[in-house]
Amino acid sequence: MTSRPAQPAGKPQRGELALIRHIRSLATGPAGALRLGIGDDCALLRPPRGHELAVTTDLTVCGRHFRLDWHTPEAAGHRALARGLSDLAAMGAQPVAAFLSLGLPRELANPRGRWESSWAARFLDGLLALARAHKTPLAGGDLSETPVPLADIVLIGSVPAGKALLRSTARPGHLLYVTGTIGGGAAALPHFERLARQAKPGNFGLNPARIPKDLRLLLARHLDPHPRLAQGLALRRRALASAAIDLSDGLSTDLTHLCEESNVAAEIDPSLLPIHPGASLHYALHGGDDYELLFTAAPTTRIPRKIAGVAITRIGRILPASAGRPLITLLTSKGPQSLHAQGWEHFA
Amino acid sequence: MTSRPAQPAGKPQRGELALIRHIRSLATGPAGALRLGIGDDCALLRPPRGHELAVTTDLTVCGRHFRLDWHTPEAAGHRALARGLSDLAAMGAQPVAAFLSLGLPRELANPRGRWESSWAARFLDGLLALARAHKTPLAGGDLSETPVPLADIVLIGSVPAGKALLRSTARPGHLLYVTGTIGGGAAALPHFERLARQAKPGNFGLNPARIPKDLRLLLARHLDPHPRLAQGLALRRRALASAAIDLSDGLSTDLTHLCEESNVAAEIDPSLLPIHPGASLHYALHGGDDYELLFTAAPTTRIPRKIAGVAITRIGRILPASAGRPLITLLTSKGPQSLHAQGWEHFA
Repeated sequence: MTSRPAQPAGKPQRGELALIRHIRSLATGPAGALRLGIGDDCALLRPPRGHELAVTTDLTVCGRHFRLDWHTPEAAGHRALARGLSDLAAMGAQPVAAFLSLGLPRELANPRGRWESSWAARFLDGLLALARAHKTPLAGGDLSETPVPLADIVLIGSVPAGKALLRSTARPGHLLYVTGTIGGGAAALPHFERLARQAKPGNFGLNPARIPKDLRLLLARHLDPHPRLAQGLALRRRALASAAIDLSDGLSTDLTHLCEESNVAAEIDPSLLPIHPGASLHYALHGGDDYELLFTAAPTTRIPRKIAGVAITRIGRILPASAGRPLITLLTSKGPQSLHAQGWEHFA
Repeated sequence: MTSRPAQPAGKPQRGELALIRHIRSLATGPAGALRLGIGDDCALLRPPRGHELAVTTDLTVCGRHFRLDWHTPEAAGHRALARGLSDLAAMGAQPVAAFLSLGLPRELANPRGRWESSWAARFLDGLLALARAHKTPLAGGDLSETPVPLADIVLIGSVPAGKALLRSTARPGHLLYVTGTIGGGAAALPHFERLARQAKPGNFGLNPARIPKDLRLLLARHLDPHPRLAQGLALRRRALASAAIDLSDGLSTDLTHLCEESNVAAEIDPSLLPIHPGASLHYALHGGDDYELLFTAAPTTRIPRKIAGVAITRIGRILPASAGRPLITLLTSKGPQSLHAQGWEHFA
């Protein structure tokens, strides 16, 4: 951690120290499991007695995970943190602290205009608003100059020892469920492409007021994902789920991970999928960025229709893995079809 | 965490999944406090009873922290991990797990030649060799395509609750010490500059065999830093140090952090500084990259001359902060002079 101390406000500064002072002034102090936050070589965390810590890191890069002309800085910050919170949700963990390693080109760190309206300050606003909503203090991080803006987010959560929801514990005969709706995150992308072509160049992201009313709900699925922390906690506390994973890379890819880790197969009934309005079956199967939870439960477990206000939908079931059977079978009206992972892969 | 499952070796792959499989095959499994490593949404850590976890993140970027024509990929990987281990050392913490978010341009992730000789594989070799030397399992991370290679390293360590060495606990009258020698990390840089101009272009880093014999020790200070984990642990366990910080940004900058966090001032006797052979007073005061420890101890505490084979040198003392006194005073032969932080600052 390169975490320089806050100082009394003097002559305004524009370099790294100014940015660190700004971040430190926005970050809340130690609370709960966080015993020491920004300002030393390391942060210190003390998990509650009998708890484990869940740790996840997510690297968000301009041009890969967001675009300067599509996403407002606030949306980029929100989405960067949402990825990590969604990983905690999938384990049934409670957020304890976040760390941010931020890379910025010089012109985004040293704005010509007012500091508060800089890309970096607005990115932090979006990130910290979501962090506050989930009572997650920013506990440290690092800064560097980089050719494009990027953020590596570390999320640390707390979960009673041995109780985390895992990918590796799905069992044949268990039923397969998703929270919320799927496909919306990816179905929004072609609209961003088109709207950005029509927009005035040089703005940071699409002006929310310029997004046509009939597209706002769909585009919000991409710009403003809600990590399913309350749902993950309920699934773990009420012992409803036998396995879980978050839907970040797309159903076909994430279900493949679940099946491989559990050494099982699965079948999906496409007519059951809760496809987001405006999305298609293709986006629901292969689109990423939904940040819903995919989980399994024993057939004897009664799963509520809603958890913390979000619908839960049964979409298929877990089968034994066997040599002749595809990892995932899609039960179409023309008969069973094999479904392959078609989600995002870097460097492919 | 985007941590895809390992699969039986089939057709060789060159994309993200191949790289993740490679990393997973090299990473050791859960051990000690690490209960669950690569392969789920999060890793799970269970600190020993009565311990806290120390967490630090360090972002290492090509062009800022290393150069493709100066550093071999192994040295870049070693140095990226060393930065985080050094932060743990400064807290007196024992490493528990490391996480790596790796950004790579496509050509470094998808080599034309043999995978094992790719920049990415060699970077991992250097990183994992140092991780093994300090019994630190790689527990997770993320991957993305980026314009230049970069790595965000998260280190998690364990320390008995309330016993971590802090920056904020230096007291007036305490004496100021450093481990090892200082100035060598930065004094090596002009030699890299010159040697790289003479080298064949297109190589990944300077060929170690081509480094003149009389420069090898000096350049090793930069290429192969040894984080002072054993020394930090001894200072904490034997209750020798009253405060500590690692020397990553340079003595003038890191001592400024210590003084600001502790609300004290300090004086340094330059004739006492353990300047590395080949370095100058300027590099010892302001050069970064030494990864030694700077610590304070009560004047009544007997500090050994060596700890775990590394020399300990008294270089000055802590004074009360007062309005008329500079934060750091240098006791030169011409009288006291004020010393300002002149270490590295991004975006400055």
